[in-house]
Amino acid sequence: MIPLEVLETARKELTDWRSSGMSVLEVSHRGKDFVECAAEAEAAFRRVLGVPDNYKVLFLQGGASAQFEFIPMNLAAPCDTAAYINTGQWSKKAIAAAKRQGLESIIVADEAASSYTTVPAAGSFEVPADAKYLHYTPNETIGGVEFGYVPQTSVPLVADFSSTIASRPIDVSKFGVIYAGAQKNLGPAGLTVVVVRDDLLGTARPETPAVFNWKTQAEADSMLNTPPTFGIYLLGLILRWIEETGGLTAMADRNLAKANALYKAIDSSDFYSNPVAADARSWMNIPFILADSSLDQLFLSEAKEAGLVNLKGHRSVGGMRASIYNAMPIAGVECLIDFMNDFEKEHA
Amino acid sequence: MIPLEVLETARKELTDWRSSGMSVLEVSHRGKDFVECAAEAEAAFRRVLGVPDNYKVLFLQGGASAQFEFIPMNLAAPCDTAAYINTGQWSKKAIAAAKRQGLESIIVADEAASSYTTVPAAGSFEVPADAKYLHYTPNETIGGVEFGYVPQTSVPLVADFSSTIASRPIDVSKFGVIYAGAQKNLGPAGLTVVVVRDDLLGTARPETPAVFNWKTQAEADSMLNTPPTFGIYLLGLILRWIEETGGLTAMADRNLAKANALYKAIDSSDFYSNPVAADARSWMNIPFILADSSLDQLFLSEAKEAGLVNLKGHRSVGGMRASIYNAMPIAGVECLIDFMNDFEKEHA
Repeated sequence: MIPLEVLETARKELTDWRSSGMSVLEVSHRGKDFVECAAEAEAAFRRVLGVPDNYKVLFLQGGASAQFEFIPMNLAAPCDTAAYINTGQWSKKAIAAAKRQGLESIIVADEAASSYTTVPAAGSFEVPADAKYLHYTPNETIGGVEFGYVPQTSVPLVADFSSTIASRPIDVSKFGVIYAGAQKNLGPAGLTVVVVRDDLLGTARPETPAVFNWKTQAEADSMLNTPPTFGIYLLGLILRWIEETGGLTAMADRNLAKANALYKAIDSSDFYSNPVAADARSWMNIPFILADSSLDQLFLSEAKEAGLVNLKGHRSVGGMRASIYNAMPIAGVECLIDFMNDFEKEHA
Repeated sequence: MIPLEVLETARKELTDWRSSGMSVLEVSHRGKDFVECAAEAEAAFRRVLGVPDNYKVLFLQGGASAQFEFIPMNLAAPCDTAAYINTGQWSKKAIAAAKRQGLESIIVADEAASSYTTVPAAGSFEVPADAKYLHYTPNETIGGVEFGYVPQTSVPLVADFSSTIASRPIDVSKFGVIYAGAQKNLGPAGLTVVVVRDDLLGTARPETPAVFNWKTQAEADSMLNTPPTFGIYLLGLILRWIEETGGLTAMADRNLAKANALYKAIDSSDFYSNPVAADARSWMNIPFILADSSLDQLFLSEAKEAGLVNLKGHRSVGGMRASIYNAMPIAGVECLIDFMNDFEKEHA
């Protein structure tokens, strides 16, 4: 979801942006107006996320999946070692990409034993001192599993924040690299944000594609080639909406209230269940299973009639999944809970 | 530029797409509505461009600049040979990327002697039989230099069509790979189209990033990861606009009329000049130089007052450049010519 206020602004400006008589979809990315727009979006991102001065903020393309490959290319030589925590499907894809890029990827914690319904306890795993970095997935969107803490490690910490970025305050200074596809909380599909600490620039392999070489893009203000202009524009609008609605502290309060309400509804029912360990439950993606899976299709079709969409769980886990990103209002969650209660009364 | 009709449609649908109550910016790329939208966009692309069945059409990210690197990765092993024609700045970037990816790039024709104001004559260059492909840039946007013919070669022909795609009919069957950033004639920045002949899939290096491996993306209908949804949606609207305005034959007539009018105005004046050889003049990008370059700034500022923007030549060549892509109406070109005539009368 994108906040309706943001969509309305984009709509109003779509054929005449900044009184230019042109759409932001048409202007040159090297023109004064767009350069300003991108600089404002970056400044808003830095303000909202509290990005320290010794970090670069890059606006790239290709999604987090592309960064799965370009993290090893930018940070490690082939045959170097990197550490990975495996908490589910997105971790696995990142690990597969690291192998593709020649790394000795050491899985320092693997939650297979719990069928990926847990995160490792803080301090329960050891990272080899020669690892170039430790990679983890703060939130697994498919399993609905989330870290309640930031791993401590002496090597640079690299985190795929695609599904939790800007959902609450974080201490950026604990990370070496934060990266995220924008499409959950920050903007439309097609924009990828990479936040990288200065001292990690300059180690890219010579064969790193120029437009995915963090240093080269940092030096070019992310404009080595044409950037995804509309995505950057929308990112700026969404960050301003976050600021106007109280910033990340208020966002965290709202998101936690939404998640708590939904978990409470699930836990207080024998009809619905969530398999994730209490200390690893996601604020953003809440999978739930119907006790009688033969009712799944009926649940989805009646939900759709009630205006509740995108509730089908990922094909790999089945059941349902509610994704309650920043732009989902508390009223939307209440509406879902009411529907779930009614459905249970009728079909339990 | 994007056709105003297309922008108006996008605006109308921006907060409620297909009566879903949602924006196309919000829907899941795996949902039925978007999967249909992407399939329709691909079908329209195939119809308009006349893409034969034995070619895949991929919707990717990263721009043509990313493909500069992924062409060698998908088509050749390191140390293989590939042939390149060098007609200017975009050719040079493609050649630099091929070197970065380990290729022995043989430049079979280089137009340096003319300061890149020419293209090599048909048949004047020889491509080594062991070259994995021949790469060329049908239109150099910065120099305004364009091939009036398609090179004949026994190896697969790879062409960066970023600035001329859909500007006129082409015979796709002459090419192994056609690729293009969408932002000139096909859509917004952030979408890249790759058209690749079936038999060229499956030769990618094992380390090719998954989301840029043409075969993997072809098998996943370009949805191995989240695609640039809004760009694909707009591409579909623009292709429908092309069909409604007569298809590529009518588009070619309009584009040629626009270009001829502007070249005639330049050539019939001593105040303006275009340095490009007559048989290599671009239909899309027309650079021109004022006899007195001290008037450049005044020309640009008076042009802007007259509503004529983006006329500044690339910093590497100076002077002026009119980019008259598909969506620029003939009236826009006439307006520019009138302004140029008035400016000449006043300042010559």
